[in-house]
Amino acid sequence: MESKVIKIALLGLGNVGTGVYKVLENQKDLLVKKIGSQVEIKKILVRDKNKKRSDIVNSELITDNWQEIIQDEEIQIIVEVMGGIEPAKTYILEALEAGKNVVTANKDLLAEYGKDLLNMASLHNKDLAFEASVAGGIPIVRPLKQCLAANNIYEIMGIINGTTNYILTKMTYENLDFDKALEEAKKLGYAEADPTADIEGYDAARKIAILASLAFQSRVSFKDVYVEGITKISTADIEYARELGYVIKLVGIARNVNDNIETRVHPMFLPKDHPLASVNDSFNAVFVRGDAVGEAMFFGRGAGELPTASAVVGDIIDIGRNIIHHSTGRISCTCYNNLNIHPISEVETSYYLRMKVKDKPGVMASIASVFGNHDVSLASVIQKHRTQGKAEIVIVTDIVKEKYLQDALQIIKGLSIIEEISAVIRVGDKN
Amino acid sequence: MESKVIKIALLGLGNVGTGVYKVLENQKDLLVKKIGSQVEIKKILVRDKNKKRSDIVNSELITDNWQEIIQDEEIQIIVEVMGGIEPAKTYILEALEAGKNVVTANKDLLAEYGKDLLNMASLHNKDLAFEASVAGGIPIVRPLKQCLAANNIYEIMGIINGTTNYILTKMTYENLDFDKALEEAKKLGYAEADPTADIEGYDAARKIAILASLAFQSRVSFKDVYVEGITKISTADIEYARELGYVIKLVGIARNVNDNIETRVHPMFLPKDHPLASVNDSFNAVFVRGDAVGEAMFFGRGAGELPTASAVVGDIIDIGRNIIHHSTGRISCTCYNNLNIHPISEVETSYYLRMKVKDKPGVMASIASVFGNHDVSLASVIQKHRTQGKAEIVIVTDIVKEKYLQDALQIIKGLSIIEEISAVIRVGDKN
Repeated sequence: MESKVIKIALLGLGNVGTGVYKVLENQKDLLVKKIGSQVEIKKILVRDKNKKRSDIVNSELITDNWQEIIQDEEIQIIVEVMGGIEPAKTYILEALEAGKNVVTANKDLLAEYGKDLLNMASLHNKDLAFEASVAGGIPIVRPLKQCLAANNIYEIMGIINGTTNYILTKMTYENLDFDKALEEAKKLGYAEADPTADIEGYDAARKIAILASLAFQSRVSFKDVYVEGITKISTADIEYARELGYVIKLVGIARNVNDNIETRVHPMFLPKDHPLASVNDSFNAVFVRGDAVGEAMFFGRGAGELPTASAVVGDIIDIGRNIIHHSTGRISCTCYNNLNIHPISEVETSYYLRMKVKDKPGVMASIASVFGNHDVSLASVIQKHRTQGKAEIVIVTDIVKEKYLQDALQIIKGLSIIEEISAVIRVGDKN
Repeated sequence: MESKVIKIALLGLGNVGTGVYKVLENQKDLLVKKIGSQVEIKKILVRDKNKKRSDIVNSELITDNWQEIIQDEEIQIIVEVMGGIEPAKTYILEALEAGKNVVTANKDLLAEYGKDLLNMASLHNKDLAFEASVAGGIPIVRPLKQCLAANNIYEIMGIINGTTNYILTKMTYENLDFDKALEEAKKLGYAEADPTADIEGYDAARKIAILASLAFQSRVSFKDVYVEGITKISTADIEYARELGYVIKLVGIARNVNDNIETRVHPMFLPKDHPLASVNDSFNAVFVRGDAVGEAMFFGRGAGELPTASAVVGDIIDIGRNIIHHSTGRISCTCYNNLNIHPISEVETSYYLRMKVKDKPGVMASIASVFGNHDVSLASVIQKHRTQGKAEIVIVTDIVKEKYLQDALQIIKGLSIIEEISAVIRVGDKN
C-alpha cells in the first residue's frame, strides 16, 4: 500500500460543493486511516472567481479555468457538483479521457447521458461514481451494484423527491391544500422559486431512470419514464385515500415484467401499512424487491448539503481505496442487458377514480356497463355528497391494463350524465 | 481483466448453505457479466457425508475432509456457513493463512474473535467479508464500511432479532401474552426449540457488537454488551406503552458518547413515530445517525435461507471482483480506534417503572422523595388500578444516569409500602 496524497478537484462550490469541502475537512485525519492516504482538494472550479464565499473555503484553491484542472496530472479525482448538462458533461468526459476518476451528483446528466459517461469510464479503466445522484445521503447505488448483486430485482419503488413528499405530508396530516403546502415548502427552502422540476415529477423521473438502470442492468433514460406530478392532487382525494386505508405519495416505480421494463412517476394510493407509507416530511426512501433478499428498504435524507456530501465523500473514499490498490474500474457499467421499455398503456395496476355525475337513476348502471365492456372490473363504487341534483362517485377498480381503463374513461367522459372526471390516481397493491 | 473460473468451497450445507447453493445456481450465467468470471462451487464440507440431502445439490461435491479443501490451491474463496465457534474459527484462520479469501455469516465467531480473524486477513492481504452476519439480507456492513465512511457515526439502533420482534408484534397487535406469542413463533419456525439465544437478547448482542465495531472503528465484543431479554415483558407494560405513545421493541443500541462506547440490548419504549417503531413481524431494521448523513435506516429480512444467501453471494461477487482486479484486502479491518467501553451504570436514559404499592396516604410522597434524593426527576407519575388496599403506580423519569436510578430503586424496594417493582424498562427519546 503506497502512502501518498490523493489530490482532487471540485467542480462547483454551491450547496453540495461547500458540504463536500466541510466533510473533507472534518475527515482529514481519519481519511489516512480509512484509505491509507491523505485526500487533498487542489483546485475548485467556479464560474465567478470574485463572488463572495464562505470563510471556511481556502480562496487560493479557487479557479475559473478548467484547463488548470484537466491538465494537472496530479489531480486523480474530479468531483462534479455543479449540476446541469453542460459544461458538466464535457468536463466529465474530458476528465475520464485524461485518466482521471470522477464522482458526480448530477442526476440530470446521468439520466440522459449515463451510457456515454460510463462507457468512457470503462474504456479508460477509471471509476465513475454517482451515489449522490439518487436519494442524496441514502446508500442505494452501491447496495444495488454490490450488496444486492446476487438478486434478480423485479421491483423498485421510491419516494425520491423530498419537496413533493413534504407537500403531500402537509396535505395529509395538516389538511393544507396544495398551494398552501407548496408555499410552506418554499418558505423552508424545500421548494425552489420555480418548483416545476419537483412538483411535476421530473426530478423523481431522473432518479427512477438511474435506479431502473442499476436494478435491471439495462439502460433506462429520463425520456423512457412516464411522468405525472402532484399539482392536481386535492384534499378531497387525500381524504378518500384515508377513508379507504391508503396514503397518497409521489412514487417512482420501476418494474421488470417478463423482461419488459416499466418506469413511471406518479401520485399513488399506497396501502397505509406499506413500508413507504410512513416515510414523511422531506425524507426519502427506496423499496426494493429481489428474488433472494425479498423486501428491503433504504431510508434517509434525499437532499441537503451534508447528506449529499456524505454520499459524495463516500464515493471519494471508495475511489481512493481503488487508487491505492490499483483497481480503478473494478466495477464498471453494469448495464449488460438491453431490455424493452413498456409504454404506460401496457402497465397493469388498479385505479382510484373520482367523478361528478348527475344524480339520477341509472347513472351507476351506465358507468358500470362502460367499464364492463372494456374489461375493467370494479372493486368498489361509492356514491357520495348527493346535493342539488349532483353526486360524487368514488370508484376503485381491480387490476387492469392502463389502455383499457383510458378507453373506458374516454367513453364515460362523453356520457351526458357525467359532469367531470375529477381524479384518476393509480393504486398500489395491498399485500 | 482475466477470464477464468473462480472456485469456491462451501463449509456447511444447512439452511443458509443450501440458499447459497441455490442463488449461485440461479446467477450462474449472470455472474460472468457481473464479475467477469464464472464462479463454481468445487467442494462442500459437511459433517455427515451420508445424510440425505436436497436433490438440487450435486452430491459429488460433498466431502467431510477439510484437508481436501484447504490443500486445494484452485479454491480461492471459502464460504463458512456452518456456524458456531469451532471448528469454524480454525478453518477460517487456516484458510486466510493459506491465502484464500473468506465469506462468513457467523455472528457468534465475529462478535468474539473478529479481531483475530480480521488481523489474519490483513496480514495476508485477503478479504474477510461478513455482510450476512448482521441483519441477514439487509445491506448494512458494506454501507457502514463504504457508503457512510465519510461520517462520524454517533448512534446505531437496531431491531436485529426477528424472533423477538415477531413475539413483541404479536403481543402488541394481537394482545397475546409472552408464552402464547413464543409458542406461535415456534410453530412458524421463527423461534428454535431452545429459544434462549433469541429471547434473552444474546443473538442481538452479538450483532450490535459487530455493528458497533464497524460504526465506531473500535473493537466491541459480545462480552462488552449489556444484555436484557424480553421474557419479563408483560401485556400490562405493552398496554401502558401504547397509552403513553410508545411501542415496546427489543433494541440493540450502540452510542459514541465523547469517545466512550455504550452498547446494550434491552427492551425499550420507542416513540411511536420513530422509524424503528413501525418495523413489525420478523422484519429487521438498522437506524444510523451520522454527522453528515443525518438519519438513515436500512430495513428488510434479517434471517431466512434466501435473504441470508443474498448477502453471502453479494460478498462472493465483491471478492470475485477483487480477485479479478488483484485487489483483495482493499478494505481490511476498519477498527483503527481503541475507545473505552462505558458500563451500563454510566448510561443516561429515561425509564418507565411500574410498581405495586399499598394504597395509603403518603405513598407517592415517599417514593418521590427517594427519587429526589438520588437526582432522579420524574416526568410523570400515574396511579392506577386501586383495589383492595393496593395500587399500581406507573412512573416515567427524565433522563438520568443508570446508577442513580438503580440506587434509588434499591432503597424503594426496601420501603414497607412497596409490594413489588414489576417493571423497569428504558425509554427512547421523543424527537
